[in-house]
Amino acid sequence: MSEKLWGGRFNGDANDLFLRLGASINVDIKMANEDIEGSIAHATMLSHVGIITEAEKDQIVNGLKEIKEEFNEGKLHFTYQNEDIHMNVETVLTEKIGAVAGKLHTARSRNDQVALDFHLYLKKRLPQILELIRSFQSELVNLADENLETIMPGYTHLQHAQPISFAHYLMAYYEMLDRDYDRFEFNQKHTNMSPIGAAALAGTTFPIDPHFTANELGLDAPYNNSIDAVSDRDFAIEFLSNASILMMHLSRLCEEICLWSSYEFKYVELSDAFSTGSSIMPQKKNPDMCELIRGKTGVVYGHLNALLATMKSLPLAYNKDLQEDKAGVFDTVENIEPILQLMTEMIATMQVNKDRMLQAVEKDFSNATELADYLSAKGLPFRQAHRIAGELVAKCINENCYLQDLSLEQLHNYSDLFEEDIYEDLKPHVAIQRRKSYGSTGFNEVHKQIEKAKEKLKGEMNHEE
Amino acid sequence: MSEKLWGGRFNGDANDLFLRLGASINVDIKMANEDIEGSIAHATMLSHVGIITEAEKDQIVNGLKEIKEEFNEGKLHFTYQNEDIHMNVETVLTEKIGAVAGKLHTARSRNDQVALDFHLYLKKRLPQILELIRSFQSELVNLADENLETIMPGYTHLQHAQPISFAHYLMAYYEMLDRDYDRFEFNQKHTNMSPIGAAALAGTTFPIDPHFTANELGLDAPYNNSIDAVSDRDFAIEFLSNASILMMHLSRLCEEICLWSSYEFKYVELSDAFSTGSSIMPQKKNPDMCELIRGKTGVVYGHLNALLATMKSLPLAYNKDLQEDKAGVFDTVENIEPILQLMTEMIATMQVNKDRMLQAVEKDFSNATELADYLSAKGLPFRQAHRIAGELVAKCINENCYLQDLSLEQLHNYSDLFEEDIYEDLKPHVAIQRRKSYGSTGFNEVHKQIEKAKEKLKGEMNHEE
Amino acid sequence: MSEKLWGGRFNGDANDLFLRLGASINVDIKMANEDIEGSIAHATMLSHVGIITEAEKDQIVNGLKEIKEEFNEGKLHFTYQNEDIHMNVETVLTEKIGAVAGKLHTARSRNDQVALDFHLYLKKRLPQILELIRSFQSELVNLADENLETIMPGYTHLQHAQPISFAHYLMAYYEMLDRDYDRFEFNQKHTNMSPIGAAALAGTTFPIDPHFTANELGLDAPYNNSIDAVSDRDFAIEFLSNASILMMHLSRLCEEICLWSSYEFKYVELSDAFSTGSSIMPQKKNPDMCELIRGKTGVVYGHLNALLATMKSLPLAYNKDLQEDKAGVFDTVENIEPILQLMTEMIATMQVNKDRMLQAVEKDFSNATELADYLSAKGLPFRQAHRIAGELVAKCINENCYLQDLSLEQLHNYSDLFEEDIYEDLKPHVAIQRRKSYGSTGFNEVHKQIEKAKEKLKGEMNHEE
Amino acid sequence: MSEKLWGGRFNGDANDLFLRLGASINVDIKMANEDIEGSIAHATMLSHVGIITEAEKDQIVNGLKEIKEEFNEGKLHFTYQNEDIHMNVETVLTEKIGAVAGKLHTARSRNDQVALDFHLYLKKRLPQILELIRSFQSELVNLADENLETIMPGYTHLQHAQPISFAHYLMAYYEMLDRDYDRFEFNQKHTNMSPIGAAALAGTTFPIDPHFTANELGLDAPYNNSIDAVSDRDFAIEFLSNASILMMHLSRLCEEICLWSSYEFKYVELSDAFSTGSSIMPQKKNPDMCELIRGKTGVVYGHLNALLATMKSLPLAYNKDLQEDKAGVFDTVENIEPILQLMTEMIATMQVNKDRMLQAVEKDFSNATELADYLSAKGLPFRQAHRIAGELVAKCINENCYLQDLSLEQLHNYSDLFEEDIYEDLKPHVAIQRRKSYGSTGFNEVHKQIEKAKEKLKGEMNHEE
Repeated sequence: MSEKLWGGRFNGDANDLFLRLGASINVDIKMANEDIEGSIAHATMLSHVGIITEAEKDQIVNGLKEIKEEFNEGKLHFTYQNEDIHMNVETVLTEKIGAVAGKLHTARSRNDQVALDFHLYLKKRLPQILELIRSFQSELVNLADENLETIMPGYTHLQHAQPISFAHYLMAYYEMLDRDYDRFEFNQKHTNMSPIGAAALAGTTFPIDPHFTANELGLDAPYNNSIDAVSDRDFAIEFLSNASILMMHLSRLCEEICLWSSYEFKYVELSDAFSTGSSIMPQKKNPDMCELIRGKTGVVYGHLNALLATMKSLPLAYNKDLQEDKAGVFDTVENIEPILQLMTEMIATMQVNKDRMLQAVEKDFSNATELADYLSAKGLPFRQAHRIAGELVAKCINENCYLQDLSLEQLHNYSDLFEEDIYEDLKPHVAIQRRKSYGSTGFNEVHKQIEKAKEKLKGEMNHEE
Repeated sequence: MSEKLWGGRFNGDANDLFLRLGASINVDIKMANEDIEGSIAHATMLSHVGIITEAEKDQIVNGLKEIKEEFNEGKLHFTYQNEDIHMNVETVLTEKIGAVAGKLHTARSRNDQVALDFHLYLKKRLPQILELIRSFQSELVNLADENLETIMPGYTHLQHAQPISFAHYLMAYYEMLDRDYDRFEFNQKHTNMSPIGAAALAGTTFPIDPHFTANELGLDAPYNNSIDAVSDRDFAIEFLSNASILMMHLSRLCEEICLWSSYEFKYVELSDAFSTGSSIMPQKKNPDMCELIRGKTGVVYGHLNALLATMKSLPLAYNKDLQEDKAGVFDTVENIEPILQLMTEMIATMQVNKDRMLQAVEKDFSNATELADYLSAKGLPFRQAHRIAGELVAKCINENCYLQDLSLEQLHNYSDLFEEDIYEDLKPHVAIQRRKSYGSTGFNEVHKQIEKAKEKLKGEMNHEE
Repeated sequence: MSEKLWGGRFNGDANDLFLRLGASINVDIKMANEDIEGSIAHATMLSHVGIITEAEKDQIVNGLKEIKEEFNEGKLHFTYQNEDIHMNVETVLTEKIGAVAGKLHTARSRNDQVALDFHLYLKKRLPQILELIRSFQSELVNLADENLETIMPGYTHLQHAQPISFAHYLMAYYEMLDRDYDRFEFNQKHTNMSPIGAAALAGTTFPIDPHFTANELGLDAPYNNSIDAVSDRDFAIEFLSNASILMMHLSRLCEEICLWSSYEFKYVELSDAFSTGSSIMPQKKNPDMCELIRGKTGVVYGHLNALLATMKSLPLAYNKDLQEDKAGVFDTVENIEPILQLMTEMIATMQVNKDRMLQAVEKDFSNATELADYLSAKGLPFRQAHRIAGELVAKCINENCYLQDLSLEQLHNYSDLFEEDIYEDLKPHVAIQRRKSYGSTGFNEVHKQIEKAKEKLKGEMNHEE
Repeated sequence: MSEKLWGGRFNGDANDLFLRLGASINVDIKMANEDIEGSIAHATMLSHVGIITEAEKDQIVNGLKEIKEEFNEGKLHFTYQNEDIHMNVETVLTEKIGAVAGKLHTARSRNDQVALDFHLYLKKRLPQILELIRSFQSELVNLADENLETIMPGYTHLQHAQPISFAHYLMAYYEMLDRDYDRFEFNQKHTNMSPIGAAALAGTTFPIDPHFTANELGLDAPYNNSIDAVSDRDFAIEFLSNASILMMHLSRLCEEICLWSSYEFKYVELSDAFSTGSSIMPQKKNPDMCELIRGKTGVVYGHLNALLATMKSLPLAYNKDLQEDKAGVFDTVENIEPILQLMTEMIATMQVNKDRMLQAVEKDFSNATELADYLSAKGLPFRQAHRIAGELVAKCINENCYLQDLSLEQLHNYSDLFEEDIYEDLKPHVAIQRRKSYGSTGFNEVHKQIEKAKEKLKGEMNHEE
């Protein structure tokens, strides 16, 4: 007969290679603390409703606390023969306190237990991630505040489009991160639910109190349906989707920092602390971290993709396929937490070359829209104004000059509406200043965005106190 | 000089194959109505703040209304030479009302215009999808109500686990759909924002009123940051992620209906209206629709995957890559709307073979947990109780009988704790009835789940009135 | 009784919305020609082995030829009620030639028929794609030939690394495309197989000759196993994988052309024929096509992803899920064919700013490796040489000069090994010239790469004659 | 000044968290052996061409061999501060042999070194995987051989379609695996290339001999283009794509074994060695391994997806993003190798319930095609024959009987073509026997498939001797 805890009906032992492949302990060891906390809450509930005695509960809980301590001190050695964190902990507990350990698994199954552990794992991380997002946003706001009047070319299609405030650009990322915050916050709704009590899938005949256990663990409520409780991984997919979008945002910023760190742009220079050199080229200073974050974006996408594929067409309720749900989530957490922290420090220490940014809009055609707007404001339909501006740009390119270099006489060949004040409008600083529409790059408008953001971040912090 | 509306600075015409590949009209024609509605709101705003006159506004708005009508009557022919829906509409408008049409594009760009259209498109569909989800949930609840005491085997690992109520199973899907509802509802937050007014990326020098336009269109507010407004597609990725999870849920149900429609299970029979035959095998009645929905799950996943890949590492603000954002979203909408409707009708007309389901638990070992629980309730640690039950199952398999066929004498060879009442506990109906834990399969518990769901669905309808 | 061709055992008609969702005619209309060609070959085989008479065969084949002609003239109207291309064609055929049309479906099923059509579709496209790849490679070689001595900075981490020949850079893409060619060529092995004769899944009792049919259609051989024949879509996944890698390569080139078209780089300028402007910014000339191709890379990835997800865990043999196999493949073909053609024309007409490229390496530190190599060649361990070069770069940055600006005296403070000839080594042209290792950027080496490529391309063309 | 090997130009030390995130040692430790082997070959080449002396080479090579031995005995401790396997090995080498270690990195860069290691890693694994595929195919053939006349229902749409030989079904998987073999074999072409000598990206001024190094390492040839050499990861994507298709195949087989292990099918029973039990339900015997393999299919898909996403739009040549190329490949290798081995053992020890399979076709309608074929062979157009068969099935369902239960009189109500011999045709065994088409389920045909396969497998083994 098999010596497995579940082996009563088995004659032969499991194939060893199969055990190694099937064991999840190397992955779920990362939620050892959550597993033990869940067991403590479960034991407490069992005694609360009278399924086990107070004395039995104390034995079990004390044993579990000891195990947790030993685990966190690195003293425990778990084995793949015991398959997973649950069996490993139970085995150690049995060694410690004897047969009474066997009572811990009353009215539960590994199906609801592993689901609980996974919920608890993410429940702990989401607030950390929310806080890291807020810190990063704060740093973006700080940097924006310092760069309200730093002028740079705004790009579309990676071509100079119109002059913008660098602060405006930074605040765009603030907004993206704000949606990321929304999403991870919403993620808590489906994460902070308690599956424990669902047992294998059907609930139990024991008079358990799932609300009690949920409450012990700081979870909002038990699942309404026990089959759903053990089959559901929506909260994990939501998390991977949210993380994918977050990483997508960061990949965009990192792409730009790579561009801006190039010889050709030279808009920014990263601190040495966030750069690396080359083993062969002595001059190299690479924005490695930004590249790495771009690369890791693909990896996080892969994790999302994997879990969706794994769960497709899976009949209810628990299937072993679900064991593959955690490695990707853990890897994602272990990536986005340091990445958010590092991004914050990296932009805080990044040197901004304001002169270089400004020069880029002083000798370009990013003021062509101003010229079109100028004519349009004087009554010309925008389409005609646009065409004249385009023709003037073509003329300048041919003559190797810029719009501001054309004489009023030359301009009059294209339209009589031009007057001396056109030259004022063509200045980058003026172009920005004249933008007064809500959300625009106008200095005043960006200032308002910054103040609004500060207010929001501050309000939240006060609220938290 | 190029004849393109934007062609002032160009000397040569575009390559024709390039125009065909680059044109988006074949895709964005699906948001023609939204494009025109957006333009009407924009024109109204332009006149509201005095950028165009009331008379110009009327000319433009009347022209646009005519175009919309003609479009919906199938009278308009759009061309790839005009690239996209925006240029096509503007071209027709110019034909209709002349040069004043050129004023419509004042203070906007295609960058904010296409973003607006896309927001409006999804803004319209989300409430439809929410309603379809609620209808499907209602049907699940109806079916559950009719099947409260329909007994079937609950499965884990596709093996008989424990007897459950079929209603309980159905309510698990109700719960999944409820989370889907939550997600699409949350999706509205980032969808119902207005990017118009962002212009190319930097806002505009014209004294526009983006709050007015947003309000005209029933959107919650303008974006806070114009660069973000034209670069953001989070709302679309959220949608694809939500749709992927929804489809994953449906693929699970469809997988099970396929299984249950098989010769081996015969638990359900689909209506002829939702089945197809074979061109070669005259006897075939295939659960085609369920298979198709499973297949389309992969397609929706692909769309999510595609948009995430496309947006990775994209520098701000608008890039042409973003043109690839819509086809996948439109295809997803066009799939999930009929799928939700069809699933609702399909389960409503599905014949449930209650006898067959019941038979499946009368001659199996799904009552083994009851036996273990019985011993455990009498004080044996669960692990020992589990082992005895396992050994008894092994004995039965050898002797080709079931647990309920063993005599009390035989049982006493394994434990003295067995008494006559064990046979009652081994009955599937009793096994279910004795489950009283919250969310469990106990008839009373499932009844409560159903009542709670009815209350929720009803409350919402009242609320809507 | 259902009027469907397969409806003998059905009582009710199919739900109309279900028919619409389930119909594939809107997708598989794209392989109408292949479907008809397959049917002609099948009928020919049936008469060849005596299952139908010569006269019946003639009736059927003539009818099919007529249908093909009418289809290609746009005269046929197919309906979703007839579900797919097979039923639509058969319906038209029956209208044309009466009941004898019913003999065409002898000894086959839609399962093997649709698989055949799909194989034939890809069989036709693969040689086209191979040819387009070779054309693109030829253009890369031409351009390389013209730019053998065009010097530019080679980049790693988007930082100047070492001076390279622009031709060398172009030949890197030649090599990538060469692997793409290998892959699509290998793709033919599993594509050019014939599934027809597999019938539903088990073969047939009719004395068919699958080798005959395969031969008629120019396919290599029939499948060895009929179950595999109807279930296999490996050839399509291979195709999507190959297309994904191809697009990945093109996305890299497009990314670089976008960078190089920027104000900051100005290394190249695309022809107006492959650029577009802006509806708001008159100066804009955007490398739209490159951005679009980058964007479409994500879409092709999505198609690969979708088909893999769809086929996961699908029991043998045919399932309706497989209907979702074609749309993504067709879309991919319709994208990569024009893209390859356009890329070829685009690089052929692209203006290369050689001066600008050269300037970029005349005032940078991309010659730092030369300095380290210089010391290393004189016996200093490379690590020490590297460190000295790094320190000299740091010194130059502080003093705002370049390595070539340092006096021999200054150099001697760091190492006595420096002699007058160091200045020669620091010149970009010399740095390239001195690279003589196989595959390197040395002019001679790149010249050899070009000649080898020409030989290969030429050899193949001769071979084809 | 930074103490990094590359730190000559740096002032500040790297941020520690950044170092931890950026270090790849925890992943590339898995190619430590390959790294050392590559270095030995490089040093040998350096001395071969006279760049270092014979004595220096001996020192270096002996040092490296010692390190390799110590590494494989678990005696070495690598650190994240040394970033990657290359720097870690070089650091230990320097400790061992002093400054001469610094000469090892002459004429190479980590860019070509890491590419070389990765090529070598896969070069070693591909033959192992090919061998494991062949072993699995052999076992499939063995099992087929034992089950030539084992009759089971062939399924389409998971409905009984037509009777087939179980051997025929198994041989379908043999064919899939054969294509997998083709793909991994082709994968060697682009894997067995040597990037070493490309240095950073441009080759080197040292008189190296890349063909010599390639030859030392058993690789086919050096890359033709050094930029391509350091930027290319096609071989890894090919591998992940091939592995994804392989896993897709296995997921289909595993899905079916799960189905067949169910209470409802009971076609097979897995050995206890490849099953697990439940912690709560004593009767459970779960086909865990099959579920796990299905689940891991999603994970492998995710790795493919991730690498494609990561490489999209990456400018040449090396970027740090590429560091994320290996973890997914390593994880895939570590999964598919044991999976292939376990699948082989699992099917070898799987118990096949032949009686149960046969019963399933004795009381069903999978012989309806025979009836239609019977009429068709007598001259009725297939479509009419199909319709009559369909009507007879409907009649039987109503009357709760099967086709073989109908009297000749009853059959004559539908067609006069029926004669006594129809009953013979309706027998499953006869239905199979009468299938004589190439690749069909006919016993003779399947026998031929098996013999052909044996011949192929044997031929290959002989060839290998």
